[in-house]
Amino acid sequence: MPVLVMKFGGTSVATLDRIRRAAKRVGVEVSKGYDVIVIVSAMSGKTNELVGWVNETSPLYDAREYDAVVSSGENVTAGLMALTLQEMDVPARSWQGWQVPVKTTAAHSSARIEEIPPANIMAKFGEGMKVAVVAGFQGVSPEGRITTLGRGGSDTTAVAFAAAFDAERCDIYTDVDGVYTTDPRVSAKARKLDKIAFEEMLELASLGAKVLQTRSVELAMRYKVKLRVLSSFEEQSDEAGTLVCDEEEIMESNVVSGVAFSRDEAKMTLVSVADRPGIAAAIFTALSEGGVNVDMIVQNISEEGRTDMTWSCPVDQIKRAEAAMDAAKASGEINFHELIADTDVAKVSVVGIGMRSHTGVAAKMFQVLSNEGINIKVITTSEIKISVLIDRKYLELAVQALHDAFELDKVA
Amino acid sequence: MPVLVMKFGGTSVATLDRIRRAAKRVGVEVSKGYDVIVIVSAMSGKTNELVGWVNETSPLYDAREYDAVVSSGENVTAGLMALTLQEMDVPARSWQGWQVPVKTTAAHSSARIEEIPPANIMAKFGEGMKVAVVAGFQGVSPEGRITTLGRGGSDTTAVAFAAAFDAERCDIYTDVDGVYTTDPRVSAKARKLDKIAFEEMLELASLGAKVLQTRSVELAMRYKVKLRVLSSFEEQSDEAGTLVCDEEEIMESNVVSGVAFSRDEAKMTLVSVADRPGIAAAIFTALSEGGVNVDMIVQNISEEGRTDMTWSCPVDQIKRAEAAMDAAKASGEINFHELIADTDVAKVSVVGIGMRSHTGVAAKMFQVLSNEGINIKVITTSEIKISVLIDRKYLELAVQALHDAFELDKVA
Repeated sequence: MPVLVMKFGGTSVATLDRIRRAAKRVGVEVSKGYDVIVIVSAMSGKTNELVGWVNETSPLYDAREYDAVVSSGENVTAGLMALTLQEMDVPARSWQGWQVPVKTTAAHSSARIEEIPPANIMAKFGEGMKVAVVAGFQGVSPEGRITTLGRGGSDTTAVAFAAAFDAERCDIYTDVDGVYTTDPRVSAKARKLDKIAFEEMLELASLGAKVLQTRSVELAMRYKVKLRVLSSFEEQSDEAGTLVCDEEEIMESNVVSGVAFSRDEAKMTLVSVADRPGIAAAIFTALSEGGVNVDMIVQNISEEGRTDMTWSCPVDQIKRAEAAMDAAKASGEINFHELIADTDVAKVSVVGIGMRSHTGVAAKMFQVLSNEGINIKVITTSEIKISVLIDRKYLELAVQALHDAFELDKVA
Repeated sequence: MPVLVMKFGGTSVATLDRIRRAAKRVGVEVSKGYDVIVIVSAMSGKTNELVGWVNETSPLYDAREYDAVVSSGENVTAGLMALTLQEMDVPARSWQGWQVPVKTTAAHSSARIEEIPPANIMAKFGEGMKVAVVAGFQGVSPEGRITTLGRGGSDTTAVAFAAAFDAERCDIYTDVDGVYTTDPRVSAKARKLDKIAFEEMLELASLGAKVLQTRSVELAMRYKVKLRVLSSFEEQSDEAGTLVCDEEEIMESNVVSGVAFSRDEAKMTLVSVADRPGIAAAIFTALSEGGVNVDMIVQNISEEGRTDMTWSCPVDQIKRAEAAMDAAKASGEINFHELIADTDVAKVSVVGIGMRSHTGVAAKMFQVLSNEGINIKVITTSEIKISVLIDRKYLELAVQALHDAFELDKVA
């Protein structure tokens, strides 16, 4: 029998009614002839409650105990889902991570899956079981302790199972009905994409289009797992949602596939840094160790032994960045004149595999922004993405103008 | 190092504050030089919530999935307790049933512990760990699925660990401060016992003095585990609570050690049953299969081939008993004239190992009740217990009169 993986997130299993609704979707796939592996998250709110208890008990907690506590939410949902399927006369049973086993590294709270031996579950499929319900987000370490994969890890669990079982597809049921050309709340013309390439999805996900966990998309790309994002709250056809797949499977596509943005950015500039080999490494090592997630980095041409170094980071990490730079200056590691923070910026990016072979995308983007009177503060580019920092107040205007200019409301 | 087992019930770990309080008690024992095994229940209310979800999902649930869901409450408490101890600089870690492993039968939801290999935990004690926190109530079946021991099973877990680790003592922390000669709410003269024999505790527990799960007392008796019941809400000395131990360790004791009672009893009588060999077996098999927990059984002398059969059961099981007897009559298995239910009775028992060697206890009990004008409806006796059914309205009067007459307020 072909295997299908279906993953239901926290909002899709938040109540017994929603679990029943999800189970019905599973039943439909079983009736089509699939052996189904269902990956479930904890009921929404449960994981936060458990994390809250751990933090209150022990602010600098032992991550092994954190994992033992926090993984329990998924166990509850897995058992309830199996019972719901049984009530519908679908042969099903639940598996916890250690029972499969989902073998992970010992990096508690952010473990990586190393191996999922399919033998146990395949044997049960062979005996007539139709659905294996697996608790997402968890695994077992080499020394037999419970691990978790980090927040949002159930997406990664789902893709890893799809790879290990050579599944026909991995369907991620969530509270949105697919991936859009941009946020519909910002542009009314936003259009749902039928297909999107892995690379594009990666750029969109990491840019704040929070539909799939980034690691799960990377994993799907590496193992060529067909990933579909769709809503658990609507009746679904086989063509519903958005298919995240290999570039080759997308026959025609727009040059640009989406406009992503991130609202809460800060731009920081180290003014007049004493330039020397290794200075960039010194700065960004210090920031990283200070817990700052640096996104864009720009270095201006250095003059007479001094340069300016600019980066962007989440606006709530400014204090950390300042502390890290002050410490580095005090220790003599880095010499600079001053550190300026601009907290009033937003990032807008256009993403698309098509721009690899189409020149002029950057020029067009800059022209569109210029026509609207929007000043560009920082530019970075990658092979399939161009990002700019602009004043936050122009964010909506910029997104709408770019969406229109690249005709994202029209199918290619 | 000597090993001590400490068990904390649901009310003793109901909040993070109470977990801290319990952890402090554990710390005191560690400072005395013990290696401690802590057995925890789920936070109070959690197990009921999980059971509720299972019942709502699937009234005739698969017990394997029930166990997978319901066991999760203890996992949470075990992790939180380990973290709390670590915060107090006590080296601790949590174990779930399958990690120890607590090997049980495959009788899901009412599994029995078969073996607890001490090697894993002992190895950690050898490495300097001071406290092993174990999730109570759960184990793992021969095929690697999660089992539970039935409600109240954490007491049994605690005693089984004490036996497996040859512990010096098993302390059961609960919301009462020990075992009393009778319920203090019924007799103000009720006195806390310093020691009580296993056999007496068994009779008291099964008679409604709900301090310890009956199975845990049986297990303690078989393996000669010293069991102490004490309050988690009071400062404790080494002599606190009540020690449940071997008869030989109790130097002197009253003839009668306690007056137990059960309020919600019903007396049922099958009138004029056609007597034949095997008739009692037929009646009580039918009742058992009908889900009726029969307690006392009395058969009157049969006359001319017919007899009356009387039993007691919880008052809320009358309908089931009637259904079972009607069915047995309809199938021709049993022939009787009528079934009478008296729903207005209560059971009062005097319990004491001393009565083995002291005659006249029964006579004295009956005389005391007679003096108070209380009519006795049914009598049963065992080696260390005499029970009677009386009108419910006389319950308090009977308990107080018996407590006085046997001088239970005085130490022997």
